[in-house]
Amino acid sequence: MKQETVEKWELFRELLQKIHGYGEAVALMNWDLRTGAPRKGAETRAATIGLLSTEAFKLQTSAEMGEYLAYLNQPSILNELDDVKRRMVLDVQEEYDRSVKIPPQKFREYTELTAHSETMWEDFKENSDFAGFEPYLTQIVEKTQEFIDYWGPKATRYDTLLHMYEPDLTVEKLDQVFGQLRNRLVPLVEAVAAAKNKPEAPFLDQLFDTGQQAKFSRLLLEQIGYDFEAGRIDETVHPFQTTLNHGDVRITTSYKQDDVTSAIFSSLHEGGHALYEQNVSPELAGSPLGQGTSMGIHESQSRFWENFVGRSLQFWQRYFGELQQHFPEQLKDVTPESFFRGINRVENSLIRIEADELTYNLHIIIRYEIEKLLFNEALPVSELPKVWNEKYRDYLGLTPPNDGLGVLQDVHWSGGLFGYFPSYALGNMYAAQIANTLRKELPQFEGFIADGNFLPIKEWLTDKIYKYGKSRKPSEIILAVTGEELNPDYLADYLEQKFKSIYGI
Amino acid sequence: MKQETVEKWELFRELLQKIHGYGEAVALMNWDLRTGAPRKGAETRAATIGLLSTEAFKLQTSAEMGEYLAYLNQPSILNELDDVKRRMVLDVQEEYDRSVKIPPQKFREYTELTAHSETMWEDFKENSDFAGFEPYLTQIVEKTQEFIDYWGPKATRYDTLLHMYEPDLTVEKLDQVFGQLRNRLVPLVEAVAAAKNKPEAPFLDQLFDTGQQAKFSRLLLEQIGYDFEAGRIDETVHPFQTTLNHGDVRITTSYKQDDVTSAIFSSLHEGGHALYEQNVSPELAGSPLGQGTSMGIHESQSRFWENFVGRSLQFWQRYFGELQQHFPEQLKDVTPESFFRGINRVENSLIRIEADELTYNLHIIIRYEIEKLLFNEALPVSELPKVWNEKYRDYLGLTPPNDGLGVLQDVHWSGGLFGYFPSYALGNMYAAQIANTLRKELPQFEGFIADGNFLPIKEWLTDKIYKYGKSRKPSEIILAVTGEELNPDYLADYLEQKFKSIYGI
Repeated sequence: MKQETVEKWELFRELLQKIHGYGEAVALMNWDLRTGAPRKGAETRAATIGLLSTEAFKLQTSAEMGEYLAYLNQPSILNELDDVKRRMVLDVQEEYDRSVKIPPQKFREYTELTAHSETMWEDFKENSDFAGFEPYLTQIVEKTQEFIDYWGPKATRYDTLLHMYEPDLTVEKLDQVFGQLRNRLVPLVEAVAAAKNKPEAPFLDQLFDTGQQAKFSRLLLEQIGYDFEAGRIDETVHPFQTTLNHGDVRITTSYKQDDVTSAIFSSLHEGGHALYEQNVSPELAGSPLGQGTSMGIHESQSRFWENFVGRSLQFWQRYFGELQQHFPEQLKDVTPESFFRGINRVENSLIRIEADELTYNLHIIIRYEIEKLLFNEALPVSELPKVWNEKYRDYLGLTPPNDGLGVLQDVHWSGGLFGYFPSYALGNMYAAQIANTLRKELPQFEGFIADGNFLPIKEWLTDKIYKYGKSRKPSEIILAVTGEELNPDYLADYLEQKFKSIYGI
Repeated sequence: MKQETVEKWELFRELLQKIHGYGEAVALMNWDLRTGAPRKGAETRAATIGLLSTEAFKLQTSAEMGEYLAYLNQPSILNELDDVKRRMVLDVQEEYDRSVKIPPQKFREYTELTAHSETMWEDFKENSDFAGFEPYLTQIVEKTQEFIDYWGPKATRYDTLLHMYEPDLTVEKLDQVFGQLRNRLVPLVEAVAAAKNKPEAPFLDQLFDTGQQAKFSRLLLEQIGYDFEAGRIDETVHPFQTTLNHGDVRITTSYKQDDVTSAIFSSLHEGGHALYEQNVSPELAGSPLGQGTSMGIHESQSRFWENFVGRSLQFWQRYFGELQQHFPEQLKDVTPESFFRGINRVENSLIRIEADELTYNLHIIIRYEIEKLLFNEALPVSELPKVWNEKYRDYLGLTPPNDGLGVLQDVHWSGGLFGYFPSYALGNMYAAQIANTLRKELPQFEGFIADGNFLPIKEWLTDKIYKYGKSRKPSEIILAVTGEELNPDYLADYLEQKFKSIYGI
């Protein structure tokens, strides 16, 4: 690099580090609000979070940033940079363009609207009050439509939203993969529902001491290789993973006395997100590339550890004895096999977050289809409950008794998250496709699980995925790792094989 | 106020609020580092704290701030403002002047030096290595001397440092009150040492479950009126109180299995600091006046609740039964009176933080005299161990076996805190003087304690001290509350009365 480039690069990297510092402070303030900050300080805290987020946004869109990008993002200069640096410039440029296109006043209005709407949503959901929620959601959709105009619509208007969470993913591609997946899952769900030999799990309907649950969650996290010296686990109402900095990757879980499996699987789920973040290459730390590459690939890792590892027979052949030691009374007459069958019961449910591994994807497809209608077909918000209930009847054979258990169940839309839901199903598909390759390259995969030897699995994933952070796009990763594009058949194959065996069909 | 003043005032207040927001983030990041942030994230975290502190400092010394102050701090404009607003302007002006007088480069060097020195100190103390520490301390003293030149020396050079922690306090005044106090305490300490009838407390030399200790600390904090909805208690190696915002005033304590009294008194101590902060008038929140007025007055409140309430006979007549219920085995044959006597044993010790209520003040006077020598008499740093040991022999009849237990024992100097130590003894003197007035105005004071009825006491203190925050100077407060200036005789009277009674002399 010539001297001028070296200097600009240093300044650019310093500015990114500074933005990252603001991000760390904001992430900690949010984490703290959810893990036990006192109620009376919450209002001021929210204002402080707003203040520092705004400062970070100002830096991201500053004249200074514009100047560095104008210099670094010239073909002749990009050629001087190595691959990672080049990608960093392009990634920052994309975020910069997206941000500067929105007039600050519009952005502020939108932020205030969604913050307020997210708070109001809890009550509307509680009271099944869609009429109350409708004006908020209508405004959020309108403003999002405006944003799409500022950003410039892609192939369809909804494509613009999808792209934010999963770069280069299109409606065309999703229509195809979700169509294919739906066609294979709907008959499988029906066959499972009609099966004679259904697993039963009365032993799960007991009370389990939450202190013992916490010990067991910790044990599992240590086993899969979560680094407690670079993270910590706390308890919150809704589990989440948050990265404060490269050496501080936290997770939370929720212990339910009447549901021993909830904390186990949410710990493995968030633990999967955390393994990804903890194993990004340190050279990317403090930059926008120092994190998972997309929502979909991130979710593939949480699902991989939760489902492909944590809900496997081999896993419970290894760990059921340990679980039994934590709950000798409750589990005294239970075998690893019956526990495995019990935690894999399939039951059509109205609520996405309570769904099993098989029907979960149908919940996502419904949301995807509705979001497309909203943005590409201008479906009025007022029609949402009707459309929602029709789709639940068609796909899952269930009709919500009220909107609280229906269209109001998820927080996402109240916060303006449109185009995000597909990530969850993408995660499942990516996970199955990656697991398929992993089984070929590490034929002892199931043996490793049965031995509780997760290091080779974690190392393989680090080498293929984690270390790259956001320096490779999801489509590049999936192609490089598996040799092909996203293909939903791997998930369908996996689910068919697993649930046909469990249900004897 | 005329329109222009209204507008400037709004902008000024907004800028203060912004600085306060940075302060909240920094305070939370520090709190988190000490309550359980993972080790591997600590280095990045320290850099982020540095970054946001620097941003806050830039705002404090910004051209914008200079402009608002230049406008608001004119006699004609000050006249338009009410008393609180006027004091806010003057307070910010003073801080601004102090900050802008130091060249930024000098300030950065000093910050880096003290941060580094504070880290190194732990090892030097551990290894009793004064020779290793000496070059650091020499530099810190030199730079502090330079700062005194920038700020402009007051009556003496050391006065400039004192003033930062206790506005308007002077060497002249401190020489007088410390002299008076020393003259009364030294014979008292000697008489106590010669007493025949010494309290004994073998029951304290047992193990006490830390979970039970945590419950008891919580109980006491609830009793004295600490608002858990506007705070929380956590465990750290060294207890502290930190204010994140007006509704979020946190404390920490440390539970020692082999010392049941440690957590009790540190909880009451930090609880006292917290009561002060929680009860500052809300209209001062988010400004530099929304906090305790000085280190000395702050310390008077922690000492008041810890010693004047918590180490009183009445307190244990009320709470010993509760403590016994938490530790029925260990305390089964103990009476409230013998417990009270046990926790008030006096023993000359080498270590300040382990000192009893009586000898504690002598530890402070020693440090004060040494700091004066350093700054007013240019005592070379290399002489410190010799001077330290001489003074310990003269005042406490003890000679440290090594510098780790002597001159290296406190972290303060390694962080550049000179002029701070006197606050601790001021706290004791203020507390005694305030308690004397309180007893006159609330003659049932001791009865309230014996009944566990702390509300009238807390309300009296709120009305006389807490609500004003930093909008009144310590000298104004002490005069308004007690009708006279700082007078060390109240502390000497209190200690004489208490310890003569306990020791039967």
